Amino acid sequence: MVFVMNKYTFDTISNIKETQKTLPEQVAEKIRKLIIEQHMEIGSRLPNEFELAQQLNVGRGTIREAIKLLVALNVLEIQRGKGTFIATNTGYVDDPLGFAYMDNEELLAKELYDLRIRLEPWIAELAAIYATKEDIASLREKQMEVEYMISTSKNYLPADQQLHIAIANCSRNRVLPKLIPVITYSVHLFGKMNKVKLAEETIETHRRIIDAIEQHDAKAAREAMKHHLDLNLQTVPALLNN
Amino acid sequence: MVFVMNKYTFDTISNIKETQKTLPEQVAEKIRKLIIEQHMEIGSRLPNEFELAQQLNVGRGTIREAIKLLVALNVLEIQRGKGTFIATNTGYVDDPLGFAYMDNEELLAKELYDLRIRLEPWIAELAAIYATKEDIASLREKQMEVEYMISTSKNYLPADQQLHIAIANCSRNRVLPKLIPVITYSVHLFGKMNKVKLAEETIETHRRIIDAIEQHDAKAAREAMKHHLDLNLQTVPALLNN
Repeated sequence: MVFVMNKYTFDTISNIKETQKTLPEQVAEKIRKLIIEQHMEIGSRLPNEFELAQQLNVGRGTIREAIKLLVALNVLEIQRGKGTFIATNTGYVDDPLGFAYMDNEELLAKELYDLRIRLEPWIAELAAIYATKEDIASLREKQMEVEYMISTSKNYLPADQQLHIAIANCSRNRVLPKLIPVITYSVHLFGKMNKVKLAEETIETHRRIIDAIEQHDAKAAREAMKHHLDLNLQTVPALLNN
Repeated sequence: MVFVMNKYTFDTISNIKETQKTLPEQVAEKIRKLIIEQHMEIGSRLPNEFELAQQLNVGRGTIREAIKLLVALNVLEIQRGKGTFIATNTGYVDDPLGFAYMDNEELLAKELYDLRIRLEPWIAELAAIYATKEDIASLREKQMEVEYMISTSKNYLPADQQLHIAIANCSRNRVLPKLIPVITYSVHLFGKMNKVKLAEETIETHRRIIDAIEQHDAKAAREAMKHHLDLNLQTVPALLNN
C-alpha cells in the first residue's frame, strides 16, 4: 500500500536539553536517580520535603519545584494530606511520543494501523501461548465490559483499549502492554463512517480472539486479531485509498 | 524462546491524573491545546507571558509555572534572552515509556530485543522500498560516523542510534523513527562481553543493510537487519539462555 510521503526528519533525542538546566531540573534528576537506585516501588512514599532538602542540600522551595516537574512526568503523584508517592505506570506520560503535535491526523491513523497490524497479531499469538487461567478470566471480564458498553450505546473505546492491554499482558513481555496506548492512539478516527456495523463486528471478533487464546491456539489467535484490525481499517475508506 | 515470566500488570493510563489538577496544570493543558489548534510549528515562538496571562485570564506567575511543566514535557523550550519556543520532537520526553523504573534490566533487554527483531527488519524493508538518493547519502554519512567512532575507540552508541533512526526515516512512516529510541533503550547492555568483535561486526552488517537499501532490495535489507540484530543478541550469553 502506497501512501503520501511527506518528508519527516526525527533528529537526535539524546542531545536535546543538555543545555543549562535550572536548579529544580537538576534536583528532579537527582530525585529520579534516588527512586531508581533505591528500587522504590509504585505506591511507596517519597521522603518528605524537609528530609529531601537536607539530603540533597537545597532549599525546600527547590524540592517543591522539582516534585512538580516529576508529577508532570508521572514519576510522582501527590495525594493531598497524605504525601508524595511513586506514581502508577511510573514515568509513563499521556501521549508519550507526542502524536498530538503531529499534523495530518488521518495519515497518522494509517501509519499507526500499519504498525498495529505488525504487532498485535503477534501479541495475540504470544497471549495464546502464555495465558494462564486467571488471565483468561480477566480477558473474559474485559470482553464483557466492552460488550456492555456497546449494548448500552456508551463510548466503548476506553474499555476496548483495556482489553487490548490485557491481551498484551498475557504475552509476558512487559514492553508490549506499554505500547498499546501508543499504537491505539488514533482509534477514535476509525468507525466514524459506520459505527453500528463496527460495534457489532468488534463484539464478534473480540470473542474469536479470546476463544483462540483460551484454546492456546496461537495461529488462530493471530489470524483473529489480524481480521479484527482489518475490519477497523475498512470503516475508513479514506485510509484504504492511501 | 521461553523466558522467565514475571507477572506484570499494566493498568489503565486514561484514568490517572484525572483527579484535582492544580491551576498551573490546567493552564499548561490550555497552552497545549492552543499550540495544537493553532498548528504552531517546531521552533515557532510562544506569545509572551503578558499576552498569555491576558488571553487565559490568569496571573503571570501561573503562566510561568505552566511553562515550566511544558518544558519538563518537552513541549516548550526556553532560550534565554530570546523567548519560549515549540521544542524539537514536541512532546517527546526522554525514556517516554518509563523503562528506567522497571526492574530486571536484563529481562527488559530481552523483551526489547524480541520487539526489535519484529520491527526493524520490516523497517529496513520499507526503507529499501522508499529511500531516495538524498536518503542514501544521509545513511552513508551516518554509517561513516559510526565507523569513525568505532575506529577511534569512542562510544559509538549515539551515532549508531542516529543511523537506525535515519533508516526508519526512510520508511516514510512517521511513527517508526519515534520508536527507535524506545526499542534501542537497552542497547548499552549488549556487547559487554565482547566489545571488539561486536564493533567489527557492526561495521560489516551496517554496510550490508545500507547496500541493500541503496539497491532497493527489500528482502536483502530485511535479512541484513535481522542478521545485524542477531549478532547483538549473541554477545550476551545470559540473554540467549532465557
